Amino acid sequence: MASQEIEALSQALARLPGLGPRSARRAVLHLMKRRQAALEPLLSALQTVADKLSTCSTCGNVDTSDPCSICRDPRRDEKMLCVVEEVADLWALDRSRLFPGRYHVLGGRLSALEGVRPEDLTIDKLVRRVSAGGIDEVVLAMNATLEGQTTAHYLAERLEGFPVRLSQLAHGLPVGGELDYLDEGTLAQALRARRPVA
Amino acid sequence: MASQEIEALSQALARLPGLGPRSARRAVLHLMKRRQAALEPLLSALQTVADKLSTCSTCGNVDTSDPCSICRDPRRDEKMLCVVEEVADLWALDRSRLFPGRYHVLGGRLSALEGVRPEDLTIDKLVRRVSAGGIDEVVLAMNATLEGQTTAHYLAERLEGFPVRLSQLAHGLPVGGELDYLDEGTLAQALRARRPVA
Repeated sequence: MASQEIEALSQALARLPGLGPRSARRAVLHLMKRRQAALEPLLSALQTVADKLSTCSTCGNVDTSDPCSICRDPRRDEKMLCVVEEVADLWALDRSRLFPGRYHVLGGRLSALEGVRPEDLTIDKLVRRVSAGGIDEVVLAMNATLEGQTTAHYLAERLEGFPVRLSQLAHGLPVGGELDYLDEGTLAQALRARRPVA
Repeated sequence: MASQEIEALSQALARLPGLGPRSARRAVLHLMKRRQAALEPLLSALQTVADKLSTCSTCGNVDTSDPCSICRDPRRDEKMLCVVEEVADLWALDRSRLFPGRYHVLGGRLSALEGVRPEDLTIDKLVRRVSAGGIDEVVLAMNATLEGQTTAHYLAERLEGFPVRLSQLAHGLPVGGELDYLDEGTLAQALRARRPVA
């Protein structure tokens, strides 16, 4: 139907998460019909990011500068460090703007099944950051999965002995969650961690 | 959270149909983590299309060449012409690969409400194409909406007297349906059962 070039663009877009072949075609058409308003801004934004793309050598965040915009931000509390598995987790947490400190991206989680060992993650680097001092609290913000929790336990062991408070995200009911729809694991956690009513 | 440049890319992607702010952020992360496999192919495909983008001066299709790949294709039956409202409709119809002829894009539909008059569409150009001869059949493939059908009636009047068969898509289209949203099976049915205009 379309020329090879358009087909290539359509396929490149279809590989993005959230877009399939049909919506990619609609997106291509949208771009082609709005050259000034849509195609050119997207092209230049993409070009800029491609040119500047780098991984923060301090925290592992993906950004357009190194150190990343979070590590460079003087308003961030450098005494607090939040450890996450992936860059996506960092972004998800930071969107809520509730954590005032900095981050450390592990680059994955320990997994016997997938053969991911401690040396495959940035754990040594984390230990160096903590042992360099100046950090009061480390929040272990792993996913609430078996592998995430295993990783958190391992990190807790590795960080034992340093003068930092270790904490982890609370487990329990998600906001808006209805008991009837939640899995038993979540309910068990929520029950175990129940708090006195003020 | 992210740098300005990443935010700009995220916003440019979020304006694509089918992507919202959340999925755009996922897409950005996907691109940044897969520089070679995803970001660069998308960038170069977009650049190529931006460089070559043009509107076919014959049929009004949006393509990377003028005349477009359909108008240039010698295997296409030049005796058959399919008139559609929008480029999206052309693409939707041509995906089914059932129509062997060429197209004519009106650029919209007649609409009293939106003030779209015959001279706002490529109707004169269509009449010139037909009057130039060599065309046996004109398929009026308007949307099955009030405005689409009004446009079809108007075109039928304008093309009266020329030695061409006029036909329209069969009424197998759901009332209120728009070509771009229909499945190929329905489009195929409608095309196969097209009827001469009385």
